[in-house]
Amino acid sequence: MLTMTLIPIGIIHSPHRQATGTPVQAALATGVRGTLEVLPEYAAGLRDLEGFERIWLVYWFDRAKPAELVVAPYLDTTPRGLFATRAPCRPNPIGLSCVRLLEVGGNILHVDGLDILDGTPLLDIKPYLPAFDALEAKRVGWCAEARGNGTVADGRFEAGGGRNLDT
Amino acid sequence: MLTMTLIPIGIIHSPHRQATGTPVQAALATGVRGTLEVLPEYAAGLRDLEGFERIWLVYWFDRAKPAELVVAPYLDTTPRGLFATRAPCRPNPIGLSCVRLLEVGGNILHVDGLDILDGTPLLDIKPYLPAFDALEAKRVGWCAEARGNGTVADGRFEAGGGRNLDT
Repeated sequence: MLTMTLIPIGIIHSPHRQATGTPVQAALATGVRGTLEVLPEYAAGLRDLEGFERIWLVYWFDRAKPAELVVAPYLDTTPRGLFATRAPCRPNPIGLSCVRLLEVGGNILHVDGLDILDGTPLLDIKPYLPAFDALEAKRVGWCAEARGNGTVADGRFEAGGGRNLDT
Repeated sequence: MLTMTLIPIGIIHSPHRQATGTPVQAALATGVRGTLEVLPEYAAGLRDLEGFERIWLVYWFDRAKPAELVVAPYLDTTPRGLFATRAPCRPNPIGLSCVRLLEVGGNILHVDGLDILDGTPLLDIKPYLPAFDALEAKRVGWCAEARGNGTVADGRFEAGGGRNLDT
């Protein structure tokens, strides 16, 4: 049987010490700066990265609750199928965030837009390419009419009144 | 020490039997249809997914070569740092593709835009939300001046003359 085991390629350093108060998406975390400390043995793979304005971070939700297949997402008050949400309590707790790359200094990457807890294991970095990643999608399911913290209709996030964005 | 082990939540069925001829990005695979067979025990997590036009697939590059930190990417002829590319030979061979969701029938998802090999283990599904995922990024590093199969300057892919797109 196929064994799929991950290894950390680094550690994410952010100001977020606990889930409460941590932005739920990188797009809502502008101004939240931190660093990615890539292990020295992987530093050679960072060559050419500095030219990219944004990068994808793939990481391990190391403090996620056990997987649940139906969850009440942050944006809504109605329980939804897990795979229709970005909730961390997934069968494979892999997180995905697009952050702005500010500076590369050796094996340390300075980034902006961190919606990730301090100390989170970093699994991968990929360049963000609008040609491949910035796609049109008019239908966004339940998110267009969510009754929790906001809606994302028309491709833009609008904060709602359900819960405070900071909590 | 933290153990990070993945489990397949399903299998990706696509027409691509080998890497040669497989599109390198989902955005270049429009018209390539296939199915995601989600294991029955995870089917409850698919609720509410049908309303989304696009979804992210997170999967395991099960036939990738061993990790290399410097690679000659598909789009270029110059060796580049691995993390500045989307090459599969990564320390954690996790793939990421945004595909168009056509239909949900029980635990089978019909999708369009598959750049993934047939039989690939599926790890996660996340909704694609333009508000969080479709971001502006003017600087795309070496991709803007790649001399291989194309460039992605101005956020659009343009095929170049370096290699044939089908090889």
